Amino acid sequence: MTPVTLERVLAPLDAALPELEALYIDLHRHPELSFAETRTAAELARRLEGDGYEVHTGIAGTGVLGVLRNGEGPTVLLRADIDALPVEEKTGLSYASTARGTDEHGTDVPVMHACGHDMHATWLSGAAALLAKGRDTWAGTLLVVFQPGEEGAGGASAMVRDGLFDIAGKPDVVFGQHLVPGPAGWVLTRPGVIMAATDTLRVTLHGRGGHGSRPETTVDPAVLAASVVLKLQTIVSREIAATDSAVVTVGSLHVGTASNVIADDAVMEVNVRSFDQAVRERVLAAVERIVHGEAATAGAPKPPEIERSGAYPVTENDEAANDALTEVFRGHFGADVVYPAPLITGSEDFSEFGRAAGVPSVFWLVGGFDPQTVITAMTEGRFERDIPSNHSPRFAPILHPTLRTGIETLVVAALSKLRHPGVG
Amino acid sequence: MTPVTLERVLAPLDAALPELEALYIDLHRHPELSFAETRTAAELARRLEGDGYEVHTGIAGTGVLGVLRNGEGPTVLLRADIDALPVEEKTGLSYASTARGTDEHGTDVPVMHACGHDMHATWLSGAAALLAKGRDTWAGTLLVVFQPGEEGAGGASAMVRDGLFDIAGKPDVVFGQHLVPGPAGWVLTRPGVIMAATDTLRVTLHGRGGHGSRPETTVDPAVLAASVVLKLQTIVSREIAATDSAVVTVGSLHVGTASNVIADDAVMEVNVRSFDQAVRERVLAAVERIVHGEAATAGAPKPPEIERSGAYPVTENDEAANDALTEVFRGHFGADVVYPAPLITGSEDFSEFGRAAGVPSVFWLVGGFDPQTVITAMTEGRFERDIPSNHSPRFAPILHPTLRTGIETLVVAALSKLRHPGVG
Amino acid sequence: MTPVTLERVLAPLDAALPELEALYIDLHRHPELSFAETRTAAELARRLEGDGYEVHTGIAGTGVLGVLRNGEGPTVLLRADIDALPVEEKTGLSYASTARGTDEHGTDVPVMHACGHDMHATWLSGAAALLAKGRDTWAGTLLVVFQPGEEGAGGASAMVRDGLFDIAGKPDVVFGQHLVPGPAGWVLTRPGVIMAATDTLRVTLHGRGGHGSRPETTVDPAVLAASVVLKLQTIVSREIAATDSAVVTVGSLHVGTASNVIADDAVMEVNVRSFDQAVRERVLAAVERIVHGEAATAGAPKPPEIERSGAYPVTENDEAANDALTEVFRGHFGADVVYPAPLITGSEDFSEFGRAAGVPSVFWLVGGFDPQTVITAMTEGRFERDIPSNHSPRFAPILHPTLRTGIETLVVAALSKLRHPGVG
Amino acid sequence: MTPVTLERVLAPLDAALPELEALYIDLHRHPELSFAETRTAAELARRLEGDGYEVHTGIAGTGVLGVLRNGEGPTVLLRADIDALPVEEKTGLSYASTARGTDEHGTDVPVMHACGHDMHATWLSGAAALLAKGRDTWAGTLLVVFQPGEEGAGGASAMVRDGLFDIAGKPDVVFGQHLVPGPAGWVLTRPGVIMAATDTLRVTLHGRGGHGSRPETTVDPAVLAASVVLKLQTIVSREIAATDSAVVTVGSLHVGTASNVIADDAVMEVNVRSFDQAVRERVLAAVERIVHGEAATAGAPKPPEIERSGAYPVTENDEAANDALTEVFRGHFGADVVYPAPLITGSEDFSEFGRAAGVPSVFWLVGGFDPQTVITAMTEGRFERDIPSNHSPRFAPILHPTLRTGIETLVVAALSKLRHPGVG
Repeated sequence: MTPVTLERVLAPLDAALPELEALYIDLHRHPELSFAETRTAAELARRLEGDGYEVHTGIAGTGVLGVLRNGEGPTVLLRADIDALPVEEKTGLSYASTARGTDEHGTDVPVMHACGHDMHATWLSGAAALLAKGRDTWAGTLLVVFQPGEEGAGGASAMVRDGLFDIAGKPDVVFGQHLVPGPAGWVLTRPGVIMAATDTLRVTLHGRGGHGSRPETTVDPAVLAASVVLKLQTIVSREIAATDSAVVTVGSLHVGTASNVIADDAVMEVNVRSFDQAVRERVLAAVERIVHGEAATAGAPKPPEIERSGAYPVTENDEAANDALTEVFRGHFGADVVYPAPLITGSEDFSEFGRAAGVPSVFWLVGGFDPQTVITAMTEGRFERDIPSNHSPRFAPILHPTLRTGIETLVVAALSKLRHPGVG
Repeated sequence: MTPVTLERVLAPLDAALPELEALYIDLHRHPELSFAETRTAAELARRLEGDGYEVHTGIAGTGVLGVLRNGEGPTVLLRADIDALPVEEKTGLSYASTARGTDEHGTDVPVMHACGHDMHATWLSGAAALLAKGRDTWAGTLLVVFQPGEEGAGGASAMVRDGLFDIAGKPDVVFGQHLVPGPAGWVLTRPGVIMAATDTLRVTLHGRGGHGSRPETTVDPAVLAASVVLKLQTIVSREIAATDSAVVTVGSLHVGTASNVIADDAVMEVNVRSFDQAVRERVLAAVERIVHGEAATAGAPKPPEIERSGAYPVTENDEAANDALTEVFRGHFGADVVYPAPLITGSEDFSEFGRAAGVPSVFWLVGGFDPQTVITAMTEGRFERDIPSNHSPRFAPILHPTLRTGIETLVVAALSKLRHPGVG
Repeated sequence: MTPVTLERVLAPLDAALPELEALYIDLHRHPELSFAETRTAAELARRLEGDGYEVHTGIAGTGVLGVLRNGEGPTVLLRADIDALPVEEKTGLSYASTARGTDEHGTDVPVMHACGHDMHATWLSGAAALLAKGRDTWAGTLLVVFQPGEEGAGGASAMVRDGLFDIAGKPDVVFGQHLVPGPAGWVLTRPGVIMAATDTLRVTLHGRGGHGSRPETTVDPAVLAASVVLKLQTIVSREIAATDSAVVTVGSLHVGTASNVIADDAVMEVNVRSFDQAVRERVLAAVERIVHGEAATAGAPKPPEIERSGAYPVTENDEAANDALTEVFRGHFGADVVYPAPLITGSEDFSEFGRAAGVPSVFWLVGGFDPQTVITAMTEGRFERDIPSNHSPRFAPILHPTLRTGIETLVVAALSKLRHPGVG
Repeated sequence: MTPVTLERVLAPLDAALPELEALYIDLHRHPELSFAETRTAAELARRLEGDGYEVHTGIAGTGVLGVLRNGEGPTVLLRADIDALPVEEKTGLSYASTARGTDEHGTDVPVMHACGHDMHATWLSGAAALLAKGRDTWAGTLLVVFQPGEEGAGGASAMVRDGLFDIAGKPDVVFGQHLVPGPAGWVLTRPGVIMAATDTLRVTLHGRGGHGSRPETTVDPAVLAASVVLKLQTIVSREIAATDSAVVTVGSLHVGTASNVIADDAVMEVNVRSFDQAVRERVLAAVERIVHGEAATAGAPKPPEIERSGAYPVTENDEAANDALTEVFRGHFGADVVYPAPLITGSEDFSEFGRAAGVPSVFWLVGGFDPQTVITAMTEGRFERDIPSNHSPRFAPILHPTLRTGIETLVVAALSKLRHPGVG
């Protein structure tokens, strides 16, 4: 990649930005839950086709693959995830979502792009267009993957299982990125482990229902569930070394439907994060011990059920590929906006693509919030309190320069690997 | 009431039982939530009309009043409640409910007659028919009231406010009854307080949402709610004298919609029972102190909201009227099946009718379970463990002699007050 | 008992009061723990000897029996308990205790007559003197028992086992009384059960100790014990019917000796009160289930130990004897100060004497606090908050008329049973 | 330091070991609590005097300084801490401690060298003797400091405040070491922060006492304290990022003295560990918020008291000095036994000496357990479960080669800084 090549490929971006902004706002207004991204996938596929990609839809249900075969050379896979979350938007934005969806338990829930996948999709759509327009500057094959079901639903594995690599072969390298509440314009990279492993457990606690006024005839699942929630806190506080890292979150807890009826059961979803396999196993064993122990202590009529409903391993970057790409980013953006990423407790299934293909992959972070606000909050120690994190109902990235930065990262990364025609 | 009169009125009951059994099974199969009892009310109104009653429907939405003006004499009000509960039936009966409804929060929920109101309605429909057929044996006015929305929804007050007593005047006495898991054939009475006061509180706890992996940026409402549930247990265990009585039940608790998102809020419904005003006030004050205290302890971004969504005072029987009726029951059924009722922690809004009219009322209990099973369980100390209580998903009364007993009690009670024609 | 007889026996009381007040203050200043009442017992024995009783000391260690054989007639046993509690006095009285003692675990603790046994002893000493002086007015045998070790230590059973009834035979009736925070001058009686059964459990929870900074190498007994304490609250709140009564109190809890060391074990003492055998068994089974369940949930290296360190059954009054005595009290004191006693959740081993002898016994309550203050507090609903209960470090009875009332009750009760000479 | 010099200084060690082993066993058998180390200090001072040191005792009560002025050259301070812990030894060793002491609250407690300070003292005593014997090989001044009161009692600061540096001036470098449950023969070093900051809080929770059977008249401090213990777990589990580190331990908790008395107060000691000032402040603020919030929630009659009874900042090694010393250790012991130390959650006041003097300091760790056992346990993931940590009642180092290694480290470190005579 020479500066002149890159300059040529990025040249149309200025003119394209208003239209990409409209795409982002449209996706933001119409978020769709995991594996229900039909409208989103259709729009993204339509654009790839317009840009001249060979488009394959319906991979793992709602996944999309765009293939651009451009002569001999390496194959680069660029991936964006496209699903939204069952969160009720509270950003107050003019284009805030009011959408609703049906979650995996059949419940009607609000839906919001609270994790920035609308931005991810827009970035990749914009980058795919630029790389297609500038195809005379590079040689090789470009795989553009819009992945469904990233939010705990295993969409990456599902696409691989559904034959993703049978269509146009395996890539030589995989790139992906995530929007984070850092300063817009910043790019953050990290060698090795960058994001946590995650395990999702669905726990059903069995009590014995009855009249709300006669608890002595029941085993109250609300009290049992409350005990479990509090006891789960002791895993991180007492069973994991301070110098190790783990998170145990009870994201949802549901008991009963009426104030004067003691329900039969309680259902909770527990999410576990870890960066180390031994810690991960210790936490999962402790969750199981506590859930079963609390049920026995309560005199539950039958043992609880613990269903592992999802698991992502750590997101891990190839060290050499990461370091090389970091240098490329520094060269393009300047050293004052490319920083080392912290270890992120969030999880991703991005690494599945590289693992399944047996090739290096690199995942980096792109800031999307007002730099002044974010940096002041960091300096004054108010960052965690004041800046909405991913998954917050108030997660509201600014559009500029966020849109531009995340498109340029993808173009720069792809071109760093694709052969210059006439060179290789 | 002379034996011969009563005998004459009850004579058609044997022949009517199969048809009443069919009514009961039909109502059981088609339970309807509070104030949604349209099908139930229509069927009960249709029958009253067939029996010659002047029928008024739509009182407080789905309430029904049947009036039988039968010459000069006292006015007797017989009341049955007709709504069902958001409970998923687990009786395994061939006529078990599979119905669903929409609860007050707009959620789709299973519905079941887990409190026996289907039996209450059938009893009163059967008694109304017999009293109409035997109208030559008595004089006065009979008010037959099918009340909607008893399950915490204030249906009795709603009917009074909607003009119930404007239609045919106030009664001179009010009678009502409840099916309980005692031996079928038994009738239980009690002077003074027979059932508890109940208060229903809807508590919204405000946390601060975020990504499930970054609890340090949030105030986790699941942990806050769990703490509240456990702390509420200390009201009864530590703040109420062992020689006083109270119940504090968290009937429902709902937090979050996804495993990897920490929600903004938790919502719980708390039901309080008491038999004494000072105890009631102490419990309610403690709930408020604990809910606010826990929110402050958690560092909640704003105070919790406590909404009093329903309150029934104690169900209290006129002592003289109760004692007189008890004697009448003993005479009719025999002393070996008429017993003193225990103090019931359940609540009722039955007393609203007598209070609003300023007249005596009497409420009694009728057993509906297999006597052999119930009495053996009592004797062996397994009653509370083995016999499903009201509101249990396994609440399954036997039909015989339950149907007959509850019809006879109403007829006997009504005739004990209505003037014998040619006598008064 | 004729009024003239009683008047004659009580006549010396006025003159004796100053000296009895001094005795009370002396006992209050020198409280002694269960079975360590050597100074107290010596003083009470000395007085009985001075009054002409045949005195037996050292029964069950520190128990005292005074026998006054006064011709043919019934045998009446009057009993007072004499031990104090490991409580640090905070009454601010000029004669407040600063005494210390050694508890059953060898620990040095403050000691206080926080339960009024100093008053009980003074009352009985005063009554014994009057009955001895007035012995020409009655015939029979008087047994004056100063019982040690009432506070959970089983002193009554110990005296019986140590041969109490071998010395002067069994009594025909047993009388006893307790000072309560009611209005001074009031006497409260109750047929049947008057006080609760009590069970004391010493629970040792085994964790695994280690450095305070490395909880992951330990099983933290402080967290385990805290969980047990909170879970025990659910027995009364969820497992006992609101219409039944029970109390579960963790009176003491001790874990660790340094802030930066996680201890191996936690030790707690649990006190259970109940009025009904089925409830009692249910509570004790629940304590055991919870203690073992919590230890398993915590991953404790070995099971906890639960040692039953004491148990008193209910204190129960012979109904006929109680009713007769109540009439006598009304006659002597006036109906405006003799009231029905409430059911008391405190416990006593007084009933052991009557049970062991197979004879009726009656136990009543005597108020000892300023009537104006107590009655105003009752009226305004501040009684429980403002009036220190038995065992409170601020339990401070007033001396007058408390001293007089409790002496007269014993004299009146004894004379109600003892034969009038020349009559029987 | 040339090999020949070092060899000459260490030559007498073989012959001295039996006597040093006897010293260790004697110290182990006679542990003394913080600032009560009179016997220990006297013995160590006696030995220094025998070795020709100028000895100053009574610094900060029981601290000892030995000064060896040996010509011109740098001043090196070697420090060992000498106090023991209130732990009951359970090692089963033939020389196990049965000692008792009086803790800071006047309570009689068992005492044990559960943190290895007996080894620290023996090491330094042995090294001091060797360096004195070999004084012809070096020039400069040696300060040997036996520090009392390291276990949370601030002994290092106390010695500095009491004029430690006024006696023989400030050192140019400070060295110290700690025995850990690693393989005997291993030495572990770390640049920068090596041990955590610690804060100790004494929390008094005020309830309102009363009779154990009448909780409704009380505010039960046992329930309040249990709630606080459980809620404190949520600081680490919810308020600190997984990628940060903190420990919150309730090391001691004491409530009540009798099973049937509800106490007035509960007292607990909380120990906090952190490696970062922002985290430290967040944890301390959360402890305060929770303790006050829980008291308010319980309706406590007055606010709790939180007394900061001790605080150590992080133990931090000068990076250059540490790296230089690590190289020296590798040269002497071999690279196969000198490893990077992990970040230790334990705390130390060692850094106070360097900070107060404004000079570099280095603190390292020395293993003291059977290598076979420790390494196998590590490999099989049983280390934390099977190997007793510092402060465990089963902490039992092996004597060989532990004694030798810790003496050699001190000699090697001192000689690495002290001028070779005739050279500088």
